[in-house]
Amino acid sequence: MDAIRRHELLATYRDGLLNDTLPFWIEHCVDRQHGGFMMSLDRDGSVIDTDKGVWQQGRFTWLLGELYNNVEPREEWLELAKHGARFLDAHCFDPSDGRMWFHVTREGLPIRKRRYAFSESFAAIAYGELFKATGDEQYAEKAKQTFQRFIDHNLNPRGVEPKFTSTRPSRGIGFPMITIATAQELRESIGLPDADDWIDRSIDDIRRFHLKEEIQCVMETVSPSGEIIDHFDGRQLNPGHAIEGAWFIMLEGKLRGDASLIQTGCRMLDWMWQRGWDQEHGGILYFVDVDGRPVQEYWHDMKFWWPQNEAIIATLMAHEFTGDSKYADWHKSIHDWTYSHFPDPEFGEWFGYLHRDGRISSQLKGGLWKGPFHMPRMQLTCWQLLAASSP
Amino acid sequence: MDAIRRHELLATYRDGLLNDTLPFWIEHCVDRQHGGFMMSLDRDGSVIDTDKGVWQQGRFTWLLGELYNNVEPREEWLELAKHGARFLDAHCFDPSDGRMWFHVTREGLPIRKRRYAFSESFAAIAYGELFKATGDEQYAEKAKQTFQRFIDHNLNPRGVEPKFTSTRPSRGIGFPMITIATAQELRESIGLPDADDWIDRSIDDIRRFHLKEEIQCVMETVSPSGEIIDHFDGRQLNPGHAIEGAWFIMLEGKLRGDASLIQTGCRMLDWMWQRGWDQEHGGILYFVDVDGRPVQEYWHDMKFWWPQNEAIIATLMAHEFTGDSKYADWHKSIHDWTYSHFPDPEFGEWFGYLHRDGRISSQLKGGLWKGPFHMPRMQLTCWQLLAASSP
Repeated sequence: MDAIRRHELLATYRDGLLNDTLPFWIEHCVDRQHGGFMMSLDRDGSVIDTDKGVWQQGRFTWLLGELYNNVEPREEWLELAKHGARFLDAHCFDPSDGRMWFHVTREGLPIRKRRYAFSESFAAIAYGELFKATGDEQYAEKAKQTFQRFIDHNLNPRGVEPKFTSTRPSRGIGFPMITIATAQELRESIGLPDADDWIDRSIDDIRRFHLKEEIQCVMETVSPSGEIIDHFDGRQLNPGHAIEGAWFIMLEGKLRGDASLIQTGCRMLDWMWQRGWDQEHGGILYFVDVDGRPVQEYWHDMKFWWPQNEAIIATLMAHEFTGDSKYADWHKSIHDWTYSHFPDPEFGEWFGYLHRDGRISSQLKGGLWKGPFHMPRMQLTCWQLLAASSP
Repeated sequence: MDAIRRHELLATYRDGLLNDTLPFWIEHCVDRQHGGFMMSLDRDGSVIDTDKGVWQQGRFTWLLGELYNNVEPREEWLELAKHGARFLDAHCFDPSDGRMWFHVTREGLPIRKRRYAFSESFAAIAYGELFKATGDEQYAEKAKQTFQRFIDHNLNPRGVEPKFTSTRPSRGIGFPMITIATAQELRESIGLPDADDWIDRSIDDIRRFHLKEEIQCVMETVSPSGEIIDHFDGRQLNPGHAIEGAWFIMLEGKLRGDASLIQTGCRMLDWMWQRGWDQEHGGILYFVDVDGRPVQEYWHDMKFWWPQNEAIIATLMAHEFTGDSKYADWHKSIHDWTYSHFPDPEFGEWFGYLHRDGRISSQLKGGLWKGPFHMPRMQLTCWQLLAASSP
C-alpha cells in the first residue's frame, strides 16, 4: 500500500464521513418536534416512517459524542448528542422493569421490546461519550447502569418468554462480541473499572467456544460447551459478524500490546474471509453454511452494507498491525468492490441492501436496522488507522 | 384457452403431482425410525436437518388424506397419513397447555412454540381427512378440537407474551383467510357444523377491514377498525397471500352458487395482480409497498414458489368461473414463467427461492417453511378445475 493510495484512502474515509454521511443524517433525521432521530429514510432522505428504533437513537448519539471527543469539539455535534440522550432518557426505558424498548413511536410511545438487550449496550456507549464531553457525572452513572443491565439481562434474562425450549441450548457469539466493543468504549469514555475483566472473559469465551482450529472457522452459534450443533441454526455462519469480532480483538491486542490477541483476530479474519468472500461476484456474503450446504435464511446471499464495512476495517487494521501485504490486497478487494456498489452518487450516503451481484435491491437509506453506525464507524476507524501511521 | 392447451395443462398438473412431487417426498421424507416426516431436504432429497416442522407434519398428512379421499384410495397414501397423524398425536402437542409446537426434534422433543396457532389449523384438516378415509370418530373429534384451539387462540391468545405493546393494535388478513380454508376443508371432511358461520364471519372481516375499493388494494395488516397504518408494517402488501385469499373466496362462491363471492375474489385478484406481478422480470413479487415506496423486509423482491402457486390457482379458477379471457392470459403468464424457472429437471420437485430475475438463490427443497403443500395443492386443484370442465 503506497503513500499515494494511503493518502487517497484517508481522504475518502475522512471526507466521506464529514462531508457526506454526517450531513445526510443531520439534515434529514433530527426530530426537533418530538426529540430524538427519525432514521427510516427513503433514498432522498425523506422520512418514510416516523417510528424510532432505539438501537439507532443510542448509536447516533454515540457517534456524535465520539466525533466531538475525538475529531473536534463542534458544538453542533454535542448539542445533537444531548438531543439524542434526552430522547433515550424520556422515552426508551420501560419503567416497569428498567429495560429498554427496541421500537417506539415518533412521540416515544413503546411499540416493541425484544428478548435481547442490545438497546442497552448502544445507550451505554452513548452516555459514556456524553460524560467524556461534558464531565457530567449523571451520564457516567447512566452509562454504568445500562452496561450492567445489558450484562445482567444477557447472563440471566428475566421477564421474557424464551424463544426456544431447553431441549437444545446454545450460545451465540453476539453477546461476548458486543461486550468487548462496549467495554472498550466505556473504558475509554468513563474509565469503566471492570472493563478489562469483561473483555478478558469475552475473548476467552470466543476462543474457547467459537473458534474451531480443526475446521478453520468461527462458529456463530454453538452448544453451551462449544460443540457444533448439526442443524440449520448451528451450521449457519455470519462471516461479516465474525470479522467484526476479529477487529475488536485485534484492537484490544494493539491497546494492550498483546501480540497473541492480534494473532487471534487475524486468524478469525483469515478463516472467515475464505468463507465469506464471494469469489464469483465480490463482496462479503451474509450467511453461509459451515459445510457449504444451503442455509435456511432467505437473504443469505445478499450483500448488506455492514459486513462490507466490518471487512474494510478488519483488513486495513490487520495490515496496519502486522504489515502483511495479504491484508492490503484483501483491503483493496473489499474497499474497491464496496465503493463501486454502495454509495449513492445522486442523494448521498449509501444503499444498504444489494443483490449478490451488486444490483440494488432496496433504495432504503435507513430503518430499524440501518442507521448512522457501521458505515461512519468504518469511515472514522479507517481514517484514524491511516492517520496514526502517516508520516 | 383451447382444448389442446387445456389437455396439456391438465396432464402437467396431474402428472407432476403423481409422478414427481409425491414420489420425491415419499421417497425422501418419511422417518420410519422415529415417525413423522423429515422435510428439510437438500436439492437431491438428502436430509439436511433432521428436525421436524409441525406445520409440515400436518400439511403432508392432510395432502395424503386428501388424495386418498379424492383421487384414489391407494393404501400407501392412507398408511402414510396415519403415520403422520401418529407423530402429531405423540409429539406435537404441549401437554401443559394443549397448544401445538412449531418445531420439534427428530425424536419429537419440543424446540419452539410460536405465538400463532397455525400448527393447529393444519393438524385439524389432516385429522379431518383421516376421519373421512377411515370413519374413525376419534379423528373427527381431534379435528374439531384442534380447529377450536386454532380459533380460540387467535381470538384470545393466552399464555404468550405479545410481540407488540398495545400502542398500535392491528389485525392481519392471515387469520380470517386460514379460517376460511380450514372451515372449507372441515365442512367437507367431517361436516363441521358451524363451518358456514366461520366462513361468513371471515369473508365479512376481509371485505370490511382489508378490501380498499378507493385504492384498489387488499391490505395485509390494518388497524382494528380497518384504517391503513401508515408505517412500514401497515403499508406492506403480500400480493401472493391476498391472491391465495382471493381463490378461497371464489371457491366459496362456486360451492354456494353465490356470484357476489366470485366477484369479490376476482376483484381481489385483479387488484393484487396489478400490484404483485413483476412487469420487468415476470412472476409475483413477495412484498410491495402500498405507495410504491421501499419496504423493510430484506427478501421483498425475491420470487418464492408459493405466491406463484397461489396465482396459478387463482387465475385458472377465475377463468373457469367467469370465462373472462383476461384470466386465461394471466394464467398463461404466471404458469409459463413459473414452469420455466422453478422445476428442478435433475432431481425433481421445485426450487423454492429464486432471485427477482428467476436465478436460483437456494437449492433447498424443503425446510421449516417449504414442504409438500402449496405446490401439490396447486397441482391437485388445477387438475380438478380442468377435469371438471373437460368434455
